[in-house]
Amino acid sequence: MPATEIPIPNPPPLPSHLPDSILDLAIIFERKELPAGDRKGLRAFQRAGCYITAAMIFLRDNVLLSSPLKTSDIKPRLLGHWGTCPGLVLIASHLNLLLRNNPSLKMIEVIGPGHGAPAALATLWLEGSLAKFYPGEYDVSSSGLYNLITRFSVPGGFPSHINAETPGAIHEGGELGYALAVSFGAVMDNPDLVVACVVGDGEAETGPTATAWHAIKYLDPGESGAVIPILHVNGFKISERTIFGCMDNKELVALFTGYGYQVRIVEEMEHIDNDLQGSLDWALGEIKRIQKAARDGNPIIKPRWPMIVLRTPKGWTGPKEVDGKLIEGSFHSHQVPLPKAGTDDGQLKILEDWLSSYQVKDRLIVDGKPTETVTRILPQDEERRLGQLETTYVPYKELKAVDWKPFGVDKGSEQSCMQVTGKFLDAVFQSNPTALRLFSPDELESNKLSAILDHTSRNFQWDEYSRAKGGRVIETLSEHDCQGFMQGYTLTGRTAIFPSYESFLGIVHTMMVQYSKFVKIARDVPWRGPLASINYIETSTWARQEHNGFSHQNPSFIGAVLNLKPEAARVYLPPDANCFLSTVHHCMHSRNYVNLMIGSKQPTPVYLTPEEAADHCRDGASIWDFASTPGSPDVVLVGIGVEVTFETIAASALLQSICPSLKVRVVNVTDLMVLVSESRHPHALSKEKFLELFTEDKPVLFNYHGYPTELQGILFARENVARMSVAGYIEEGSTTTPFDMMLRNGVSRFDLAEKALKAAAAEGKNEDIKQGLDGYLGEIKKKVKEVREFINSEGKDPDDIYDMPKFN
Amino acid sequence: MPATEIPIPNPPPLPSHLPDSILDLAIIFERKELPAGDRKGLRAFQRAGCYITAAMIFLRDNVLLSSPLKTSDIKPRLLGHWGTCPGLVLIASHLNLLLRNNPSLKMIEVIGPGHGAPAALATLWLEGSLAKFYPGEYDVSSSGLYNLITRFSVPGGFPSHINAETPGAIHEGGELGYALAVSFGAVMDNPDLVVACVVGDGEAETGPTATAWHAIKYLDPGESGAVIPILHVNGFKISERTIFGCMDNKELVALFTGYGYQVRIVEEMEHIDNDLQGSLDWALGEIKRIQKAARDGNPIIKPRWPMIVLRTPKGWTGPKEVDGKLIEGSFHSHQVPLPKAGTDDGQLKILEDWLSSYQVKDRLIVDGKPTETVTRILPQDEERRLGQLETTYVPYKELKAVDWKPFGVDKGSEQSCMQVTGKFLDAVFQSNPTALRLFSPDELESNKLSAILDHTSRNFQWDEYSRAKGGRVIETLSEHDCQGFMQGYTLTGRTAIFPSYESFLGIVHTMMVQYSKFVKIARDVPWRGPLASINYIETSTWARQEHNGFSHQNPSFIGAVLNLKPEAARVYLPPDANCFLSTVHHCMHSRNYVNLMIGSKQPTPVYLTPEEAADHCRDGASIWDFASTPGSPDVVLVGIGVEVTFETIAASALLQSICPSLKVRVVNVTDLMVLVSESRHPHALSKEKFLELFTEDKPVLFNYHGYPTELQGILFARENVARMSVAGYIEEGSTTTPFDMMLRNGVSRFDLAEKALKAAAAEGKNEDIKQGLDGYLGEIKKKVKEVREFINSEGKDPDDIYDMPKFN
Repeated sequence: MPATEIPIPNPPPLPSHLPDSILDLAIIFERKELPAGDRKGLRAFQRAGCYITAAMIFLRDNVLLSSPLKTSDIKPRLLGHWGTCPGLVLIASHLNLLLRNNPSLKMIEVIGPGHGAPAALATLWLEGSLAKFYPGEYDVSSSGLYNLITRFSVPGGFPSHINAETPGAIHEGGELGYALAVSFGAVMDNPDLVVACVVGDGEAETGPTATAWHAIKYLDPGESGAVIPILHVNGFKISERTIFGCMDNKELVALFTGYGYQVRIVEEMEHIDNDLQGSLDWALGEIKRIQKAARDGNPIIKPRWPMIVLRTPKGWTGPKEVDGKLIEGSFHSHQVPLPKAGTDDGQLKILEDWLSSYQVKDRLIVDGKPTETVTRILPQDEERRLGQLETTYVPYKELKAVDWKPFGVDKGSEQSCMQVTGKFLDAVFQSNPTALRLFSPDELESNKLSAILDHTSRNFQWDEYSRAKGGRVIETLSEHDCQGFMQGYTLTGRTAIFPSYESFLGIVHTMMVQYSKFVKIARDVPWRGPLASINYIETSTWARQEHNGFSHQNPSFIGAVLNLKPEAARVYLPPDANCFLSTVHHCMHSRNYVNLMIGSKQPTPVYLTPEEAADHCRDGASIWDFASTPGSPDVVLVGIGVEVTFETIAASALLQSICPSLKVRVVNVTDLMVLVSESRHPHALSKEKFLELFTEDKPVLFNYHGYPTELQGILFARENVARMSVAGYIEEGSTTTPFDMMLRNGVSRFDLAEKALKAAAAEGKNEDIKQGLDGYLGEIKKKVKEVREFINSEGKDPDDIYDMPKFN
Repeated sequence: MPATEIPIPNPPPLPSHLPDSILDLAIIFERKELPAGDRKGLRAFQRAGCYITAAMIFLRDNVLLSSPLKTSDIKPRLLGHWGTCPGLVLIASHLNLLLRNNPSLKMIEVIGPGHGAPAALATLWLEGSLAKFYPGEYDVSSSGLYNLITRFSVPGGFPSHINAETPGAIHEGGELGYALAVSFGAVMDNPDLVVACVVGDGEAETGPTATAWHAIKYLDPGESGAVIPILHVNGFKISERTIFGCMDNKELVALFTGYGYQVRIVEEMEHIDNDLQGSLDWALGEIKRIQKAARDGNPIIKPRWPMIVLRTPKGWTGPKEVDGKLIEGSFHSHQVPLPKAGTDDGQLKILEDWLSSYQVKDRLIVDGKPTETVTRILPQDEERRLGQLETTYVPYKELKAVDWKPFGVDKGSEQSCMQVTGKFLDAVFQSNPTALRLFSPDELESNKLSAILDHTSRNFQWDEYSRAKGGRVIETLSEHDCQGFMQGYTLTGRTAIFPSYESFLGIVHTMMVQYSKFVKIARDVPWRGPLASINYIETSTWARQEHNGFSHQNPSFIGAVLNLKPEAARVYLPPDANCFLSTVHHCMHSRNYVNLMIGSKQPTPVYLTPEEAADHCRDGASIWDFASTPGSPDVVLVGIGVEVTFETIAASALLQSICPSLKVRVVNVTDLMVLVSESRHPHALSKEKFLELFTEDKPVLFNYHGYPTELQGILFARENVARMSVAGYIEEGSTTTPFDMMLRNGVSRFDLAEKALKAAAAEGKNEDIKQGLDGYLGEIKKKVKEVREFINSEGKDPDDIYDMPKFN
């Protein structure tokens, strides 16, 4: 029998052979009875919340069932996910009560199952939070409720997933798996903040969530707030049982105890309100105990933070059975449980009975307002309700600026972009002790950024050497955690930097895209303030991963950023250390972008003074006169990226030495976006400026750090592209020498010089080149042969290959 | 004090506050003494292996220290990672002994920490496995050893990371985190195979590994083999302690017990050989017990598979201290522990003492051969040694073909590509009951592929409804697991399919790239046979994710495949169900590619008969006469992708109705690679064929499913691109109607018709268009307005918008 025909709802997990004694590890609790009024209030809030949720999925009219339900009351397209919603309503009711009962508590909610938007919106309306941000549209009134229910999931209304239009939301939850890491990022350096994070049991199967449970090991209770993870186990995904739904309590307790948590399991539906509120109380108490110890200077070793496993039936309170299929407690409740409600009288009747069962009209909602029974569980202070905490919508704290120019280095010297940047960032960290963090997958030292550690340290609580001593740096070998932490930290108003080996940043490709989607919408939400940009530094690039080899060579993250909306996408390839400083300074103070900065950790020539670098970075691209022949060129060589720009300069020198009649212009592009067609990107060069740099009709040879196709795609609609050609990384590599990497990918000085000569000869204006072409090419070929032989016999590059060419 | 200056090597983990009773969950074992000869043999193998490993990192000559070490003996560039190697040598010695002692055992090793290549290569040389595959070069002889040591990590020799040139390897391990899922994929449908999988404690921090521990829940012991995971805890990453290195035994035991394992901890260095071999014996026994029960028809409920935690010091047996820094047991041993050995006499002396300490020359290696003491732990049968199992290098079993044409559907009908494909795949599964699998992140039902489940089912062992009853389908909400399973399954000779929501396939972007790097090298390794391609089906695309909204709209995986080497990259966008059938059939029988197939799950028109579809797919692109006006066109409209092709056809019909004088050609491209510049891809159209389809000079308007920039990059070097323009997904979306998604992204029939008219007018040859342009545009504008108003008022698309246009 296929699993699609599971005959019983939410069957109990198979028993494991683990000893019962494991259950002693769980937090066994005595049930605390809530005051009767609060319990009644919770139930009322839940009934109202579930009613509105279901109504949002189904109704286009008659929203409070003032008359018998008709097919014309049903939306033409039924969209939304019911299954996860009742649990989310339950949790929202309890979080509000917890806030009411703890007047000093500052708490927000991060919802992993973002498809539970109807539940979030329904409870936000009950709270009055929708009315605050959408006055006139979603007021606490009959018309507000009508709008909420009828406009949900139709064009122009709230979408079917939580997004930046949802008050209180700092996480979209469309691509599952990231809620937990985002929550931990949000509480870092927010000592008073608690994030209640709902993790669905589908989401819990993802790798990013599986490792994010370790995040407590990076949370210093002295300086940061806390997360209450609520693993919401309802047993099913779209059409299959979940891993966690099939784990029994012994397995769950062992697992989360192993991660380092204290675990409470809340699962008895007849006592769910007593047990859930009691467990939240307990969690808050444990958090306070751990924080107090750390803040008193006696930090607990390996503090066991609290977490809650909440088991409720999927689609709880919904229809039990439809057309012989079990709905409540089964995967059939995942999306729309009555898909034919608009066409089938039987389903319409079930819907009416279901909606009526909540007994909302005139009991819980009167004159378009929830009754006092419903609202009594809410905090009096509206700004403390789940949707209204300022940190979720106007959080931005600009960094204190540090002048970067004093950290500039001498033109003509050789410097590692990363070492120089590390020293500058050290100063920025000192000036911003609680508003800037760095997240990295264990590569700070390897990436030569370790000067950052001169006045701060790594924050890792499971290691006695950094435990409870703060630290601006988190290094964990999970790019997903780094990204999630950065998102949570940024979305709550601070600034973060994520340096990484170039090849491994693609691991968070889709997370970055999801984040940028959230921010794209947020930019257009009038009540949301700006955010810092998220800042990636890519180094240990393919051009200098010759030692680690092919698996460490992958510049594809550029392409990921290029596909974003132009308003968000920023890609910089600063050619030297001073340009890198200027760029990193600019990025840290920019807003709402995804900034990708690519540089070298190896010492490379400094071409520009700090002042010249500032000008170059402002322009985004310039002609480099020192490496060009004067006057109108025969050919334009363009370097984009550190090593390939050096090869461009070396190619120019080589051409000037073997073929002095060829007029060569060298251009460097530091801001990739200037090349995009005019009007397609805010940074795009005007047509005039573009032609000024690249001429109207001369061959232009790009020597590009990334994949050629993406640069070709950028240049496509520019003027006269038939004269242009692009070299770049073409997936050729191994453990070899740095210069051999240039040769293998066709971006060496020799490749470029050869192409320049051929292009100039083909263009046909320079007679000397046409006549002497074979001889010039022969000279180049000879030099390539010599270099290859040297590399193969000596196992290293010729010593003089990185000498800066002398120009007149 | 920064963590970089940890004063003691491998400090014990901080104690947790967990009760000691947890340790009772671990498998407590009585130490079994190995026979003295075997123990001596293991030590000898380990000493020889560690010696060769270290020599590979350092020596360019004098490889057996026949004379005092000189600086000229040292390689000019010291590359390699020592830290992980001694543990890998230790494990390799034990796996060989286990093979020797169990003559029926078929076992391979998957090494997560791929930077431990020297250890793998050293032990493969000792086994004679290198000699088998590289006769003459790496023989078991003095010259073979000389070559191994001196050529490692220099251009032309073995690279610093395990790759496809490494015998026995089916996993590169460059991008950490995937070894475990790959191992589980390898044993599926391989009932006799055991994979010993080494997971480094750095790697263990990644999300993909964190969730891959759950993979036992998808392993049916009746039909599949088993994995022995060995978590190798040496405490440090590049420059920081690891999470797992800081977890004490109670935490580790609780965690892995929770995952469902029986855990043995092997950590006492003075008894390491007895304990490790004893634990491997135990693991094998447990595996047999679990498998026997299942195969006898009495499967154990939630079988607790064995796993081993192996704690050894990082850089074990290496130098203890250099220049005041502790090396053995600290992160300082991660890479090259004596970086100045070639220039500093002190370091040279330490190196000589270190290498000499293994006492290899004339004791363990005599006349270029390991002594019998070293080789006695190896299986007699060389083909059973770790590097030589056939399944690792000539595994490919071609699928039994099923004719797809009988599954073809009627031209003119409306069909879901996925439903039709599901029925075909059902038949293919029936014909190939043990050589084809499908891995999916819980979306088979949602993606309308559920006919696949007609004769098989989901394989999920933690659920009583599928436990130990086989099943070709694994659905787990971890794209990383799906990808890892597919890799392991494919690398051991079978064929796999990975269907997914389009937007979430990017989650495994870098895994796919890593895999294709492995396969790229494997193709050039003469002793490796072919492999099946890996096959992705993308559906629920952005064009039909209008209900889930913006977070579910992301076609970026196309770009990931485009960046691969042309030999590997295949991207198909079949326009209808028959084309999809032809494509999926072709892909399943292709070799060594990455196949990406993109289609719709919604019913869409069938334009071609099965025979016509076969022709169209073979050509990759054709003119669709039925939707074109006869003769030489004024403008060419090109559809690439299901929904945008329909809009292209609709645009042609619209143009023919409002402006009959405009001659329109409609082209469909089903194989994206035909557009790549001639000679750049095996599928690229010749210049002649390209111009035949797209004309020499007429405006060509592409309506493309993916991001415009990537198609522009493909077209860049084609003829006369200034006349071309590309529309595609531009990151505009929400929960809305399907047609509104077309409008928002500028790919609707109206957008296309408007562009066609403007382009034809600008080109100036058709006088009627020039004169009538404003009128025609006005008509289009009016239609757009009507449609928008309908959508906004009705909350759905006009019913006739998906009617197939009638052409003459």
